[in-house]
Amino acid sequence: MPRYFLTLSYDGTAYCGWQTQPNAPTVQAVMDDALSKALRPERPYIVGCGRTDTGVHADYFVAHFDTIEPIAETDKTTFKLNAILPPDIAVHSLREVDPTLHSRFSARRRTYNYRLSLDKRPLVRHIAYRPYFLPDFDSMNEAAARLLRHRDFTSFSRLHTQTKTNDCIVDEAFWSEQPDGLWVFTISANRFLRNMVRAIVGTLLDVGRGRLTPDDFEAIILARDRSKASSSAPARGLSLTNVSY
Amino acid sequence: MPRYFLTLSYDGTAYCGWQTQPNAPTVQAVMDDALSKALRPERPYIVGCGRTDTGVHADYFVAHFDTIEPIAETDKTTFKLNAILPPDIAVHSLREVDPTLHSRFSARRRTYNYRLSLDKRPLVRHIAYRPYFLPDFDSMNEAAARLLRHRDFTSFSRLHTQTKTNDCIVDEAFWSEQPDGLWVFTISANRFLRNMVRAIVGTLLDVGRGRLTPDDFEAIILARDRSKASSSAPARGLSLTNVSY
Repeated sequence: MPRYFLTLSYDGTAYCGWQTQPNAPTVQAVMDDALSKALRPERPYIVGCGRTDTGVHADYFVAHFDTIEPIAETDKTTFKLNAILPPDIAVHSLREVDPTLHSRFSARRRTYNYRLSLDKRPLVRHIAYRPYFLPDFDSMNEAAARLLRHRDFTSFSRLHTQTKTNDCIVDEAFWSEQPDGLWVFTISANRFLRNMVRAIVGTLLDVGRGRLTPDDFEAIILARDRSKASSSAPARGLSLTNVSY
Repeated sequence: MPRYFLTLSYDGTAYCGWQTQPNAPTVQAVMDDALSKALRPERPYIVGCGRTDTGVHADYFVAHFDTIEPIAETDKTTFKLNAILPPDIAVHSLREVDPTLHSRFSARRRTYNYRLSLDKRPLVRHIAYRPYFLPDFDSMNEAAARLLRHRDFTSFSRLHTQTKTNDCIVDEAFWSEQPDGLWVFTISANRFLRNMVRAIVGTLLDVGRGRLTPDDFEAIILARDRSKASSSAPARGLSLTNVSY
């Protein structure tokens, strides 16, 4: 069976994340439905590169699916899919790949962005979180750099998950101001634990408001205890922005 | 009576423009209501720098109002207003001005942006229009430059308006690609006619798809006839971005 990789982006506001679950709107369910319509009589089942949480966005998301018959014209299928899909989901590319490639398990590196707006900005309110204080980005960057020194991120993981290890290799983590005035946290790693980026951002924001020092932040990493970290930053600021294989 | 200038921004998606009208949600009506709540027992009437059309946004909008008593702490009032206002409207500043200044009649120059996304982009779908072809921005820029040579923009005005003259002094008009990948048309003039920017963008898009040449575009300006121009570009791409006094 031929296998296809599909890249897409979505506004997660209206969805309970990527992964299909009973009685909740998910991006995966909408994609499965659109694929079945575009590729009739095929009924492919789509597998995503990760599960995003409720309200989290994706500027770039990769998923795969298999078909019984090869797709004759992938560009036409992309066009069809976009005509079927609602405006909050877009397909950017579709290409055949080696059937041993898996959108989730073959991914080597993922990048997330967390967007902050420093004042009330109606036009980006769906994609940026506005903290009620002016964060000290120098301290936040000093703290963020500590993430690169450690491997075990139990302090930023959801409790009682089924993962065997909480080890991740974070290779970049920094805040930068964008030309449009938003401040963006960029973090890349070989893998992420559930809720990890939002827990990190929530804790970094406590550094940014002076409640924690960069040393405190590093001590929280070392504690390997979720209860030491701060509460998670809101979902709407988070977006998956890259996945590489 | 002291007079105040207020700067704000709004997502126009949910509004029938700025100006209050019976039985339609407008930004002006929401602002009047918020001001009455924040400045009780004052009931100021707010006057905007212009009327935006249904669905048009403002990154920067100026409005004025008068009060009976001076406002003691304008920063506190700004904060209160933002707490009262819905998330799609934000107040950025509030300052007392000379009572002879008028947000609309004293404005010397206004700037609008029209945003295009060249592919389906869920995260900016509310603020950018996506044309169904790849526009030739070189031709569009060549045509746009012709706007600076002329004064009478009857061809891009709404018919049967009450304005005495259709003369405007356009001092910049160009397309540029933004760091986020959107293409933006920037146009500044001392004044704009109703629907003018959207009619200009609609006609420039016909240049961009090869239906009209830059010379055709200039001939349309010279024709002083609305029926020669193309249909207006959709409201959601348009935003007022600056007003100067």
